[in-house]
Amino acid sequence: MPIVAPQTSSPDPVEVDALGARLHGLVAEILPHRRCITGDGLRQTLLALGQRVPLRISEVPSGTRVLDWTIPKEWRVREAYLAREDGTRIVDWADSPLHLVQYSVAARDRMPLWALRAHLHTLPDHPDLVPYRTSYYAPTWGFCLSQRSLDRLAEEIGEGGEVEVVVDAEQVDGSLTYGEVLVPGQTEEEILLSAHACHPALANDNASSLAVATALARRLIDGPTLRHTVRFLFAPGTVGALAWLDRAHAHLGQIRHGLVLANLGDTGGFTYKRSRRGTLDQLLPVDRAVEVALRDLGHGLEVRPFTPTGYDERQFGSPGFDLPVGRLTRTPHGEYPEYHTSGDDLSLVRPEALAASLEALETIVRTLDGDGVYRNAQPYGEPQLGRRGLYASLGGLPNGPEAQQAALWVLNLSDGQHSLLDVAERSGLPFAAVRAAADRLAEADLLTDETPRPTAPVGDGATLSADDLVTDFRSP
Amino acid sequence: MPIVAPQTSSPDPVEVDALGARLHGLVAEILPHRRCITGDGLRQTLLALGQRVPLRISEVPSGTRVLDWTIPKEWRVREAYLAREDGTRIVDWADSPLHLVQYSVAARDRMPLWALRAHLHTLPDHPDLVPYRTSYYAPTWGFCLSQRSLDRLAEEIGEGGEVEVVVDAEQVDGSLTYGEVLVPGQTEEEILLSAHACHPALANDNASSLAVATALARRLIDGPTLRHTVRFLFAPGTVGALAWLDRAHAHLGQIRHGLVLANLGDTGGFTYKRSRRGTLDQLLPVDRAVEVALRDLGHGLEVRPFTPTGYDERQFGSPGFDLPVGRLTRTPHGEYPEYHTSGDDLSLVRPEALAASLEALETIVRTLDGDGVYRNAQPYGEPQLGRRGLYASLGGLPNGPEAQQAALWVLNLSDGQHSLLDVAERSGLPFAAVRAAADRLAEADLLTDETPRPTAPVGDGATLSADDLVTDFRSP
Amino acid sequence: MPIVAPQTSSPDPVEVDALGARLHGLVAEILPHRRCITGDGLRQTLLALGQRVPLRISEVPSGTRVLDWTIPKEWRVREAYLAREDGTRIVDWADSPLHLVQYSVAARDRMPLWALRAHLHTLPDHPDLVPYRTSYYAPTWGFCLSQRSLDRLAEEIGEGGEVEVVVDAEQVDGSLTYGEVLVPGQTEEEILLSAHACHPALANDNASSLAVATALARRLIDGPTLRHTVRFLFAPGTVGALAWLDRAHAHLGQIRHGLVLANLGDTGGFTYKRSRRGTLDQLLPVDRAVEVALRDLGHGLEVRPFTPTGYDERQFGSPGFDLPVGRLTRTPHGEYPEYHTSGDDLSLVRPEALAASLEALETIVRTLDGDGVYRNAQPYGEPQLGRRGLYASLGGLPNGPEAQQAALWVLNLSDGQHSLLDVAERSGLPFAAVRAAADRLAEADLLTDETPRPTAPVGDGATLSADDLVTDFRSP
Repeated sequence: MPIVAPQTSSPDPVEVDALGARLHGLVAEILPHRRCITGDGLRQTLLALGQRVPLRISEVPSGTRVLDWTIPKEWRVREAYLAREDGTRIVDWADSPLHLVQYSVAARDRMPLWALRAHLHTLPDHPDLVPYRTSYYAPTWGFCLSQRSLDRLAEEIGEGGEVEVVVDAEQVDGSLTYGEVLVPGQTEEEILLSAHACHPALANDNASSLAVATALARRLIDGPTLRHTVRFLFAPGTVGALAWLDRAHAHLGQIRHGLVLANLGDTGGFTYKRSRRGTLDQLLPVDRAVEVALRDLGHGLEVRPFTPTGYDERQFGSPGFDLPVGRLTRTPHGEYPEYHTSGDDLSLVRPEALAASLEALETIVRTLDGDGVYRNAQPYGEPQLGRRGLYASLGGLPNGPEAQQAALWVLNLSDGQHSLLDVAERSGLPFAAVRAAADRLAEADLLTDETPRPTAPVGDGATLSADDLVTDFRSP
Repeated sequence: MPIVAPQTSSPDPVEVDALGARLHGLVAEILPHRRCITGDGLRQTLLALGQRVPLRISEVPSGTRVLDWTIPKEWRVREAYLAREDGTRIVDWADSPLHLVQYSVAARDRMPLWALRAHLHTLPDHPDLVPYRTSYYAPTWGFCLSQRSLDRLAEEIGEGGEVEVVVDAEQVDGSLTYGEVLVPGQTEEEILLSAHACHPALANDNASSLAVATALARRLIDGPTLRHTVRFLFAPGTVGALAWLDRAHAHLGQIRHGLVLANLGDTGGFTYKRSRRGTLDQLLPVDRAVEVALRDLGHGLEVRPFTPTGYDERQFGSPGFDLPVGRLTRTPHGEYPEYHTSGDDLSLVRPEALAASLEALETIVRTLDGDGVYRNAQPYGEPQLGRRGLYASLGGLPNGPEAQQAALWVLNLSDGQHSLLDVAERSGLPFAAVRAAADRLAEADLLTDETPRPTAPVGDGATLSADDLVTDFRSP
Repeated sequence: MPIVAPQTSSPDPVEVDALGARLHGLVAEILPHRRCITGDGLRQTLLALGQRVPLRISEVPSGTRVLDWTIPKEWRVREAYLAREDGTRIVDWADSPLHLVQYSVAARDRMPLWALRAHLHTLPDHPDLVPYRTSYYAPTWGFCLSQRSLDRLAEEIGEGGEVEVVVDAEQVDGSLTYGEVLVPGQTEEEILLSAHACHPALANDNASSLAVATALARRLIDGPTLRHTVRFLFAPGTVGALAWLDRAHAHLGQIRHGLVLANLGDTGGFTYKRSRRGTLDQLLPVDRAVEVALRDLGHGLEVRPFTPTGYDERQFGSPGFDLPVGRLTRTPHGEYPEYHTSGDDLSLVRPEALAASLEALETIVRTLDGDGVYRNAQPYGEPQLGRRGLYASLGGLPNGPEAQQAALWVLNLSDGQHSLLDVAERSGLPFAAVRAAADRLAEADLLTDETPRPTAPVGDGATLSADDLVTDFRSP
């Protein structure tokens, strides 16, 4: 069974430019779809991704119990706007889905500005930006607009000026949709990569991660088979992740490593949020592989402990599931001024940032996949590497070249207790050099492979049964 | 069984002023009693405290073996002074008990200054201060005076000038006295708060802690019953603590948490000295509750490891007992210039410092008492808090309000392995907010209480038997 | 069984000067011997050390398998030089053994400078220094010279100028030599001190350590018997250490602590490289004793983790042996500009540095030897030290003198779980003060000795059998 070593060659800058442009193009393509936690905007987004990679779509009917939750009805909007008495529109959902609070209930009314204010959301500290707000479970309606628009309106019509309210929306029985890409590996041990797919009109949060993840899926499909199966999950936040968890129950034991992906397009540095177990107990391979991979790539990395707030790591890291899932972002949620506003647009997301995010994610996956545990077959003293062509013949220089150092490190730590990731961490050597040294030493019969393997098939993938697969999108 | 949550409301500044004044008044009241490790000054101090709270007094007869020690005779002084040939007194015990080395033996003599010097104690670096010195077990006598007085005397009478020495003191069979306040709780699990009560004429060390502890006892008696029984111990340092330990042997297993209290009246920041076990092994709840409580109050805190020097934590933390007892002070012993001198007077102790010490101590006790271990009854994914009224209905804002964050943290860490103290530490949220969230979640049947409880009564309080209780003070 | 306490008196500066001069003299005496991993230069070095201490010599015949290696043939050089066409010598092995790559094969040729360059080694960054190079296992030949000599030659004769090459050397059946000094202790538990003895003409690396170790052996032989047996090993690097390990297999279990010694003569600060186990798992006594001893002596110390590169700690710390062996140096290999060059000469090594290295090494050995585990015989409260003359009679001063603090610390931590080294670390008190306090407390029956002792003799020293001992050096 050949082992796939991480790629060590530096990427070609021209290729990176082209890659960044392609990723940015995909973000631009999916940005306009009016995503929500249910509905056709979500389906259109998945369809667009499904043109790049084989995507399996699941629909979970409204009213279905998923864990402690219930799949909500689908929210459908025909039109929604605020208008002055003369009919000119103040804000219009047709211009941007952000203008309407998600899951607003129907309303058709006329009221003075002072009364309307209870339904208006602005950002006084960022007067030009329109906020993104939701009210999935409390039946209300609301409009989001820039503080500056509101101030101008108040100046022009006064607090007593009348405003027409139209929310032509309904909540109907339908279903919640999520998509999966499965890249089969040599084993059913899984790496889960999950990105929420419910936010409309926000480029970084999270069209960026949908684009990066789709591009990685394509690469892995096109490349040599990994040891791990890699599963990509594109689902609406919270209730979508819960729906998947509910249905995937039987095969969750196969998940060896996972990452929630968000905000991978801005130019901030990378931030890693550790898995729950890595925070409470001891670092998991995913927690360590992220650090090693980003170190090897020369990126800075801010590492944070797990918290039960944030994205879907909340669900994967709930105490009952406690999956080995961390979270990779660039700037975390709430920490950039454009977060959840109309400012999170195509200009915030940069091609070179997307390309570097893809490279980082791929290196993490390859590090996790290339890890292993070995035993030195000649553990008493150093084996004589020179006669096996594994040692510089000219002595007297301190430490020797990297490949030779890597060989010494792998031999020294291959006591059945340490993994190659341990070696990469302790030695400071790139994981790829360590992996390559292990391959050379194994060829020379100086190592035996003691990587733990499941003794029986971990599962049968039955949770992705034919019943779940919907290949035709239902029309609204 | 109702759970008493920590109080979260900020104290009223006017009340704080009044409280500080009352505490300072109590310090002033007990300061003049001529405390020693035995005798009537100690008894009078306990009597004064006993006017505020029900105090149980124990007398241990001279000559009683307590652990490796023997209760000494009582030391009684009628008069003690140094005088010039003309009869004018140089120093007089009547002016301050500090002038005489504690437990000085009787002496009546006349000697030149140069010979007397072997019996004189001064502080050359602090020439205006009179030191505090003891010689409990080595039979000698000595006087303490300011370096300036001594220099003046030498100038006036010369080294050959004669000085009259009078120490009219005796050591007689009697007893060693200590006092206890017991605030019964819902269980016999105990919190021990101990303050040494043997130092004469030193306001911060330790009249301050006697006053603060007495005030806390009064509050706890007047308030709702805690889960823990709280025991206050006011005993002479070392031999008094040993006497109590010797007699309390049978019930020491009930002690779950404890603090030695000292120097709680100066304006220095708080210093916590960890328990022995918390230093050697792993932090105990008391070690962690002190840090959390002072953090929640916005106080700085210097944390130090256990050492076998200091106050009675030496005895509680001896390897045989190894009780879960830390030490709370403001400025530790030996680290303020007035330590063990006449400068440790009423001006060193500040009303606002005493009031803040009381608030800190109460918060620590309530944190320890409010801690518990819970299990999330819906551990797979987040339970839907919204439909239970525990979640903000408007989404799109990062993290949400503190109460909601606290609920998410409690749910996530309530896996039967983590306590609310763990939650407060990891989340950075105030313990009171965490405690309140646990109460709300338990009401909503989302938590079950798994706080470890003793399966049988821990003891019967027999060690505080009637024989030990002396309600009348014997006259000297 | 008397316990030997570490010496606490500061060394006399005049004695230190004399000692430094003696150590420097020994370095100067052994520097000229043409050491290699085999051969007479190595034997002459051991013979010189054997004039100071009883040294047992072992010879391991060429061709012997040792672990994964084979003892090489002996390398013998009659002459080796480069000469111009007019016969004047460019470099000559007779001037310095560094000029010839160690283990060069025979060559007799004439070639233009441009062709010769493949066999020349210089240090362009240090143009006046001659490098040290070896080729033990790849059959080639080469010369080392200063960049400046080479440049001058090129200027004078041009790239086409002819150079005469003479390497009159051969590799013949012989043996590899190593030496051991055994200082018997009260037990067969061993401290191993190892210094590589194969580098020619390099003063710091490692004539310095051979001198320091020999001087310590002399001191230990002349002083009172330690609890531990101390073994000094002077062997060629790598293959010599492997040969010793191969033959010592049966008694390696006796080794309780060990140090590889190198570069002990330069004026850099001390650097300690932890043992393999101390790096991976938890600190071993040797890792801790080095830190405590150097702290007690007031030296700075840079502590580094184990790595599988460096000196013979690579072999002692291979995963099969995993011996408790750290490494003590001043400036580590490769970190001073003169490393492995002709600049590592007598001027780099300073008498005062050698003397301080000896003092440090002796303090480490005495700390390891004086360590022990005790149990407080009066663990409930403090025993009354005053009536045993172990406590200052005058109270009221914070903490008291060092001896009293040491007694309190030893009593508090003597719970059968902590060693005196633990006490020295936690208290910050000098190990010698802690050891002395334990002695006084044991005399007063307040401590019982619970130092773990092997229940049976650990070995019989058979690995140093008569067959291994060669007292006559064979002539070349």
